[in-house]
Amino acid sequence: MTTRKKTRYIVGVDVGGTNIAVAALDESGANTYGLRSEPTRADQGSEAVVDHMVRMIDTAIAETIAETGAKRSAFAGVGVGAPGPLDRERGVVLVAPNLGWHNLALRDIIADRVGLTATLDNDANCATLGEWWLGAARGGRNVVGMTIGTGIGGGLILDGKLYHGSSDVAGEIGHMTIDSTGRWCKCGNYGCLEQYASGTAIARRAREALTADSDSLMHRMVDGALDSLTAALVYEAAKQGDMLAIEVVHDTARFLGAGVANILNIFNPDVVVIAGGVTQAGEALFEPLEREVRRRAFKAAVDAARIVPGTLPGTAGIVGAVATFKQQALGAV
Amino acid sequence: MTTRKKTRYIVGVDVGGTNIAVAALDESGANTYGLRSEPTRADQGSEAVVDHMVRMIDTAIAETIAETGAKRSAFAGVGVGAPGPLDRERGVVLVAPNLGWHNLALRDIIADRVGLTATLDNDANCATLGEWWLGAARGGRNVVGMTIGTGIGGGLILDGKLYHGSSDVAGEIGHMTIDSTGRWCKCGNYGCLEQYASGTAIARRAREALTADSDSLMHRMVDGALDSLTAALVYEAAKQGDMLAIEVVHDTARFLGAGVANILNIFNPDVVVIAGGVTQAGEALFEPLEREVRRRAFKAAVDAARIVPGTLPGTAGIVGAVATFKQQALGAV
Repeated sequence: MTTRKKTRYIVGVDVGGTNIAVAALDESGANTYGLRSEPTRADQGSEAVVDHMVRMIDTAIAETIAETGAKRSAFAGVGVGAPGPLDRERGVVLVAPNLGWHNLALRDIIADRVGLTATLDNDANCATLGEWWLGAARGGRNVVGMTIGTGIGGGLILDGKLYHGSSDVAGEIGHMTIDSTGRWCKCGNYGCLEQYASGTAIARRAREALTADSDSLMHRMVDGALDSLTAALVYEAAKQGDMLAIEVVHDTARFLGAGVANILNIFNPDVVVIAGGVTQAGEALFEPLEREVRRRAFKAAVDAARIVPGTLPGTAGIVGAVATFKQQALGAV
Repeated sequence: MTTRKKTRYIVGVDVGGTNIAVAALDESGANTYGLRSEPTRADQGSEAVVDHMVRMIDTAIAETIAETGAKRSAFAGVGVGAPGPLDRERGVVLVAPNLGWHNLALRDIIADRVGLTATLDNDANCATLGEWWLGAARGGRNVVGMTIGTGIGGGLILDGKLYHGSSDVAGEIGHMTIDSTGRWCKCGNYGCLEQYASGTAIARRAREALTADSDSLMHRMVDGALDSLTAALVYEAAKQGDMLAIEVVHDTARFLGAGVANILNIFNPDVVVIAGGVTQAGEALFEPLEREVRRRAFKAAVDAARIVPGTLPGTAGIVGAVATFKQQALGAV
């Protein structure tokens, strides 16, 4: 009798307030199958969202089987990334305001419904682990990941392993105070980095500046409807030379630079990987950011670190959910 | 032939800009021998300081032998804690401004001169590891240590091990920005925690406040010579009910609270151990500090952490130097 080492497959799920993204990867991470992203429709309730997740997982499995000829027994399990705070040990999402979830035993529900082993980790941790496994942070030993979107999420890989802290809430980099008497944050703190450098904050700072400057291109971009101004539009206006937008982008880099400098002085990482929409600004963000970091952080920490944009936009969370499954259920990535 | 497991001894050395402290501990940490602290006299040059360290180590060994009847062969080695930045792998102190040292190969010099294996680690790391091994942070899995004196040093024990980062400069908690447009720090950054909550900063904030208030008890305490005002005197004046001093102490707790809240949100530790002179203020510091932390940090992080004063004043550095020797040279504490 001859045995042949069969390829195993793992399904990755990234569930957020806006979208559910699902795909299957082979164990090596070389191939992705059945990648799909669909609106979460959180307002339909947690049961409907879970049903939707299960359907998407089944579809990804079916498409992988169709494409590769694999048997269903070749699927090792499902890694799920979800917004925190979580109780990882029990596999429970404690609170997810954007999804309206409270104490949802997501891991075991998914495992039961799909009929495969499942793991659960924080979405920001997953995104960081994804970039470390297959993306911009490959080869790093100490990696700090930041995902800048509506808020700022963080993930920590220290000495080659995800660091979760004592009650699974480590890595809340967006809620690091950079101005102790600064802007109020809905977390209850003042001066959180997220209040200055998230996509939401960028748009808000631009709106605030616009009330005193009606000549800006940004006014015209939104037909005067300032509420519809987004960070993406601010960056677009800056690209077109709008002075006010350029100033907002520059300030963003300075605030973010203070945050990243803190990260360098505290963690002394070899990679800081920044993901999310604002990284599309490219050098307009990273060049002043690096300058600010160099001005603020210890030279030995600056020299040790590369600050890079993520290279898995849209899939880092899925890839990382698969990687956490590999670490937690299979013992290694 | 019968063998008897002999007690082994390790010498711990804590060298700083002000004092050199040395003692020998048995491997279990249960007993301390020949504890001594002497002025460093850094102005006499690095060779004189190293000679002094070697004499103190030899004395500690001789006193341990006299007291226990141990043989010299029972000494496993010397653990040294020194101000950073260090190159731990090469055992070199890269720069120590308060000692006037540059690229001093301290580990190997001590090993050669004493004739025992030696290890070298950062003094703040040693202090944290000391509190974890035998002091206030015992039993912690994730411990952040802060030593508040002239500056603010930090040490990190994550998942039960000292975390050094990618180039041995991790844990610079004193140089975490808590006010990105705030006070200039000699590290080059602005708004470092150290500029608000170190002993030096406490005295300076009091002096600044005193220029506008000549009724304060603090004026009389230093006979109007404000330059001689210290953090200890500020706390003493607060204890005696001086309103201005009470305000300075309260502000210190708030600044420190912002820093500790950042630590909780980022590291989610089970213990934050605060050492150094200012902890003598006791509840006058810790009570408003805890309140501020509770106001700022995530509840799940606050609930997981105890914030405690160090219990090894004067010896945490020595104890931790012994513990780092055990971890690095003997493989375990």
